[in-house]
Amino acid sequence: MANIDFWFSIGSTYSYLSVMRLGRVATETGIEFVWRPFNVREIMVAQNNIPFANKPVKAAYMWRDVARRSDKYGLRPRLPAPYPIPDLPLANQVALLGMREGWGIAYAIETYRLWFEEGLVAGADPNLSRSLRVARQNPEETIVRASADAAATALADQTRAALALGIFGSPTFVVDGEVFWGDDRLDDAISWSRSGRVR
Amino acid sequence: MANIDFWFSIGSTYSYLSVMRLGRVATETGIEFVWRPFNVREIMVAQNNIPFANKPVKAAYMWRDVARRSDKYGLRPRLPAPYPIPDLPLANQVALLGMREGWGIAYAIETYRLWFEEGLVAGADPNLSRSLRVARQNPEETIVRASADAAATALADQTRAALALGIFGSPTFVVDGEVFWGDDRLDDAISWSRSGRVR
Repeated sequence: MANIDFWFSIGSTYSYLSVMRLGRVATETGIEFVWRPFNVREIMVAQNNIPFANKPVKAAYMWRDVARRSDKYGLRPRLPAPYPIPDLPLANQVALLGMREGWGIAYAIETYRLWFEEGLVAGADPNLSRSLRVARQNPEETIVRASADAAATALADQTRAALALGIFGSPTFVVDGEVFWGDDRLDDAISWSRSGRVR
Repeated sequence: MANIDFWFSIGSTYSYLSVMRLGRVATETGIEFVWRPFNVREIMVAQNNIPFANKPVKAAYMWRDVARRSDKYGLRPRLPAPYPIPDLPLANQVALLGMREGWGIAYAIETYRLWFEEGLVAGADPNLSRSLRVARQNPEETIVRASADAAATALADQTRAALALGIFGSPTFVVDGEVFWGDDRLDDAISWSRSGRVR
């Protein structure tokens, strides 16, 4: 059974569903998910892939769809959440730093919870400091490190790696080079990791 | 248990999956699906919702995703199918006429089969005449009727009705006014028709 790479950007709406349920899915399936933050906005803008801006009907549907699926997963967001978020790069530079240091998943879950369930924009305070505290990190010191050039370069490297895999949206699950886009393709990715097929 | 309206456009790629499997789903679930052809391209162009044109990475992913899901449903398409199709309005004017006269589902299935499995573009000959013959209709006479102003007006009326429901893509399932977009939301629509929730 292969690991599954979970490529995501804090800032993506549907990624809320995956971030909040992936721990449970990992426990239930025994699959190891490797959390890989990247900058989906950079790829989408470059590819002229703008799903919701200036598309009010589709955007309204997205929030309704996220609400229904949240209910399915036992989540209770207050929707619509503030969107888009201005500081997507910083939100994900923090996440990437955290993945390398072992506290990234706790941060990602809490920052999404505060954003989608309490209306506090991810990537900015008070969300940033509060979610870092929940992840047992010093907010001031961590934000300084995550704002440095090295952190920006690290995220850009991840984004280039995502691009090279054919990733164009968030969340995306990758199993043995096979790309599955969307929270709603998680079952397909799990099936692929078990049998090399979608069943 | 509510009926489900199945809004679709011949010309949509993911609608292949729904058109080919909906009969079996209806049998298995006991749900009645009401097939409603409309012109999704008109709505998408008006809403600046262009999913694949000039988006080669996303388009390549779509074909891969359709291939994997076809395998899941026991379908054997030859992909990519010719896309986009030039004569989307005529393809759907024929379908709408057929839905009103009782042969529309047979035509829709055969025209998708010829398009996705034999590479013959829907909405044009030889696909059009061959699929009409399979639906036991006279091709010449039917194409004349489906090309008339009245048939174009009938499709435009359906498209306006779809727009009024908040439909922006194909396929879309509608249950009691609740909109579910995508072949991958069929299970959610079925769940809604049974319980008013997504489970």
